[in-house]
Amino acid sequence: MANEITMVGIAGASGSGKSVLAQLVAQRLSKKYGTEQVVILQEDSYYRSRDHLTFEQREQINYDHPEAIEHSLLVLHLQQLRQGSPIDAPQYDYAIHNRKRESLRLKPPRLLVVEGILVLHDQQIRSQLDLSVFVDVPLDICLARRLDRDVTERGRTSQSVLEQFQTTVRPMYFQFVEPTRQSADIIVPGGGENLKAIELLNAFLETVLDDAPAAGTASQGTWSP
Amino acid sequence: MANEITMVGIAGASGSGKSVLAQLVAQRLSKKYGTEQVVILQEDSYYRSRDHLTFEQREQINYDHPEAIEHSLLVLHLQQLRQGSPIDAPQYDYAIHNRKRESLRLKPPRLLVVEGILVLHDQQIRSQLDLSVFVDVPLDICLARRLDRDVTERGRTSQSVLEQFQTTVRPMYFQFVEPTRQSADIIVPGGGENLKAIELLNAFLETVLDDAPAAGTASQGTWSP
Repeated sequence: MANEITMVGIAGASGSGKSVLAQLVAQRLSKKYGTEQVVILQEDSYYRSRDHLTFEQREQINYDHPEAIEHSLLVLHLQQLRQGSPIDAPQYDYAIHNRKRESLRLKPPRLLVVEGILVLHDQQIRSQLDLSVFVDVPLDICLARRLDRDVTERGRTSQSVLEQFQTTVRPMYFQFVEPTRQSADIIVPGGGENLKAIELLNAFLETVLDDAPAAGTASQGTWSP
Repeated sequence: MANEITMVGIAGASGSGKSVLAQLVAQRLSKKYGTEQVVILQEDSYYRSRDHLTFEQREQINYDHPEAIEHSLLVLHLQQLRQGSPIDAPQYDYAIHNRKRESLRLKPPRLLVVEGILVLHDQQIRSQLDLSVFVDVPLDICLARRLDRDVTERGRTSQSVLEQFQTTVRPMYFQFVEPTRQSADIIVPGGGENLKAIELLNAFLETVLDDAPAAGTASQGTWSP
């Protein structure tokens, strides 16, 4: 029998600091509950496999549209983890715009943090989450951060990042990402630099994790009033 | 010597559910720490004394502008409570648009929740707060709630509420209230109906209050990472 799993979703614009927030929240909880018990799952890993397309064709895809992500597989994996089964999580290679051949075996942890621009877009994902967080940062700050990261870490040119920002990132943000803000349980301004919000999330998650029953009991809502 | 005091500010539009949120947060903590140790202070109580004006003149005042509130007195009171001194908090009578003659003696509690539309507007107030919260609710929902409350509870006509909404509430919200959103540590969508946010705030505040030293030590930042 598996331990009960707690799932947190962190959504927000690209460059808002979702990943940093997820990492900082996970960092402290890992120390208390063990590294294997606190796992971050990136929505980016679920970008669709595009083996049938050329690199040039893959470059043309709108990666900020919900259709670019295989949400059905993510939903299935969340359900499997919830049921206590391990999953084989896909991995993504930004440099070639395609899914890697190797997947990553993941056993159900006590805390799963799912982070990505559209994790609150899909109702089936939302229904799996015990806590939903939206990171709220002005889009100009997100662009500056994204430029810095994608050029230095992901080997992109600033020209291609700017073009993508104007053609897909910005319009898709207002069409699909920003509307999920009001469905979040809590909104974090400032992103990963908001240390007080991290304290808040940690205090709450420690309460939830310490209260979570070990096995065989109801798997949701045990910490609701 | 006084116990250390923790101060939380809750800001947001009129009708956003600030008061309900404050009450629900305080309710559970009161049970744990005692009613006298968890106190809600309303910014509305600090509306300026207007004894020198007639009722008709007082009706014409823009009550949604920062100048309508005696923030300097609120700052002084927060400082006095922080230092362990009791305050004589003013009381306000909405029906006559004026401060009551009687004040309310208040001893420093362990937790003080300050709620009001502009509690994050004044830098001196913000600097006293250990946690700042902004309640984020669409303005049309706020108007509907406000109409209901001001007519039934405060003896106003719906016509006067609507007129005030258009002439002062709405423009002042966008000029003074909404800009304080990004200075909050955390943003709560949905207001007092957001039970998960209340759980989060309670878990955090219990951690802070349980960790707060008894006397004579540094009065701020003890729970920052």
